[in-house]
Amino acid sequence: MTREPRLEIEYCTQCRWLMRAAWTAQELLTTFPQELGEVALVPGTGGVFDVSLDGELLWSRKAEGGFAEIPLLKQMVRDRIAPDRKLGHSDRKPTGDAGHGM
Amino acid sequence: MTREPRLEIEYCTQCRWLMRAAWTAQELLTTFPQELGEVALVPGTGGVFDVSLDGELLWSRKAEGGFAEIPLLKQMVRDRIAPDRKLGHSDRKPTGDAGHGM
Repeated sequence: MTREPRLEIEYCTQCRWLMRAAWTAQELLTTFPQELGEVALVPGTGGVFDVSLDGELLWSRKAEGGFAEIPLLKQMVRDRIAPDRKLGHSDRKPTGDAGHGM
Repeated sequence: MTREPRLEIEYCTQCRWLMRAAWTAQELLTTFPQELGEVALVPGTGGVFDVSLDGELLWSRKAEGGFAEIPLLKQMVRDRIAPDRKLGHSDRKPTGDAGHGM
């Protein structure tokens, strides 16, 4: 029984990205505990780190050449499942030197 | 696209059990990275902490009156998806005073 909206994080087990995936899941479930139906952690291989929402690919590490910043992921999820939600300081557009979590 | 075998952990957000659910997910994904298709974290309410595998309820906090020990969960998952796998010291039957993780 899948619950929607379903966020899926496929991560590379060889790269040991489980904790990175779990951290990403925790960030999104903490921000959207009422709005998200589930977050699925999917073990993969070959350097994959893909984040999808109900089948729509939001971020692919290979395509983008790196990992998504958490504030950006939150904005993408918010725009799709809770467009009226304010995200506080996470709502600012990331600037070039904003490498810290927001 | 759900991946099977699918382990599902439904946790109570009001009880702040997200990290407990994430820890349980991490334990099982670390032990069964090849065998599990996915682990889904499902936000719930009302004191729920249910662990299911492909729709079969393995453990319910309310029915059992507490949380499952990780070694027991690993054994239940192993028996269903990887019956030939040895779990090392997790394979011993839990004794009454074995409260630590195995």
